[in-house]
Amino acid sequence: MSPEVRQASADQAEFLAALIEAGLLLESGVPGVYGHSDTFEEIRERLAERLSAEASSRGAERLRFPPVLPRRQLESSGYLASFPHLAGSVYSFEGDEADARVQADRAAAHEDWSEFQHPTELTMMPAACYPVYPAIARRGRLPAGGVFVDAGGAWVFRHEPSHDPMRRQIFHQHELVRIAEPDAVLEWRDEWANRGLELLRGFGLAAELDVANDPFFGRRGRMLARNQQAERLKLELLVPIAGPEPTACASFNHHRDHFGSNYGIELSDGSTAHTACLGFGHERIVLGLLRTHGFDPATWPAAVRAELWPDR
Amino acid sequence: MSPEVRQASADQAEFLAALIEAGLLLESGVPGVYGHSDTFEEIRERLAERLSAEASSRGAERLRFPPVLPRRQLESSGYLASFPHLAGSVYSFEGDEADARVQADRAAAHEDWSEFQHPTELTMMPAACYPVYPAIARRGRLPAGGVFVDAGGAWVFRHEPSHDPMRRQIFHQHELVRIAEPDAVLEWRDEWANRGLELLRGFGLAAELDVANDPFFGRRGRMLARNQQAERLKLELLVPIAGPEPTACASFNHHRDHFGSNYGIELSDGSTAHTACLGFGHERIVLGLLRTHGFDPATWPAAVRAELWPDR
Repeated sequence: MSPEVRQASADQAEFLAALIEAGLLLESGVPGVYGHSDTFEEIRERLAERLSAEASSRGAERLRFPPVLPRRQLESSGYLASFPHLAGSVYSFEGDEADARVQADRAAAHEDWSEFQHPTELTMMPAACYPVYPAIARRGRLPAGGVFVDAGGAWVFRHEPSHDPMRRQIFHQHELVRIAEPDAVLEWRDEWANRGLELLRGFGLAAELDVANDPFFGRRGRMLARNQQAERLKLELLVPIAGPEPTACASFNHHRDHFGSNYGIELSDGSTAHTACLGFGHERIVLGLLRTHGFDPATWPAAVRAELWPDR
Repeated sequence: MSPEVRQASADQAEFLAALIEAGLLLESGVPGVYGHSDTFEEIRERLAERLSAEASSRGAERLRFPPVLPRRQLESSGYLASFPHLAGSVYSFEGDEADARVQADRAAAHEDWSEFQHPTELTMMPAACYPVYPAIARRGRLPAGGVFVDAGGAWVFRHEPSHDPMRRQIFHQHELVRIAEPDAVLEWRDEWANRGLELLRGFGLAAELDVANDPFFGRRGRMLARNQQAERLKLELLVPIAGPEPTACASFNHHRDHFGSNYGIELSDGSTAHTACLGFGHERIVLGLLRTHGFDPATWPAAVRAELWPDR
């Protein structure tokens, strides 16, 4: 079944309409896909700079990746077993000139033109940390102490159309990744969960840290979700923005040796690396700021402005 | 037919190997899809800032868009008639839990898992200016003098796998768009073609301005290309980087009333707007700089550094 478009709560719908009316978000015609105004991007970029500065001052190496992933890597990752409903894959034309004409005619009439579309070697990026692991694995054994990567605010795709402005099909996920000894990784994850909490509270957001689970698919997924909760593998920063539930604005994920084994990442002593990643949702945090402090950043509390515009 | 991977010339292959060896580009396993190092991104971001500053000082409004386009918009645009071989479309899973298990098993074995993948409402972004036109059309009649939009360095997709490092499947295209009266638009396009030429020469690149054509598909495409050339609708900045031909690093495109009619964009007097767009290829310009001045920006000529790092 094609996914239903999730309806928004009354206050979510009102918030989205106000964002569009103010020009902060630009409608595309597809729910969960929006353009950004200059003001929206100015806030988002300041947030990205702040997160990268926090990482850089603690030794992070900056790497950047495009919004697509090799199909082979998605296949090997196990993502399709857990999140088949969220994954996107990239198709392209195969055919001759006559086929191209038929395809163009059908498309112009908004009819089905899938006949000549075939899978490419690429899929949409499911999570911003995915390309980090093979890139680090390719370097060979890690230096003592492991590595810390800032993968920046990268575009990621989730096929979950919704009229809730906090639920995007495509958004910037700012990922920080740690690859190291088991204890060091867990300690780093917990330290950053608390740093993230302080950071969001410093922005004047009513953030709370909680144990969480991923939106695994189906009945088997409900069991995976319970295990993930019980083992505290995923922590989230929740912020009330609009709607009956608070919105997850950041997550802090402990993978144990899942990616280390999958990609053959070795510590300096040859043992398998553990990994953890943090993901800050740029758009959700910007929406939290706009909802909490108003649509004009010039009128935000001085303490909040000082956090995001330290040089003004 | 599935596209063959284009082979690189000897010097292109050597350049790509050196970029990977130096860590400036990170291999993904798919030709034309790479990650970027901190140094690569630092140069790219300085270039983006410089282009946006040139636009902003001349009154451009900054808007930003994601790397996907509504399928309906691609269908209406005529893109599939001209460039079916370059377009990408986004597919996603439809099915129940049993289907999901079959799909996951096939994917894990690197077998064909296309059975349960169906077209979504989205395609890959073919050109960074595409979302600008409907966003401006939605505002109603334009103010006198029209509009000037800086759409920034947005990710665009072209399905043309190649071992030439200058030919990416996904890259940052920095688009500036002018929507106004016919004379104003043509004048703006030509003025920016000369500004772009000066800018690239100021970076120490041996750029030349030439009349060009798009890579239209098939036999009909060759006729379209000849017409485009004869009417000087497309200008390009060509820079020798590697390979037998210079590389197009920027293009300056006059659309006449194509997008204005298509999206119903009206000037202040109610007549149909003309449009033009400029696209600077971030990665190609960065590669031109690295090839011309060496892999360490600290050792670049002072005059080039002053253009990109004016505050140092």
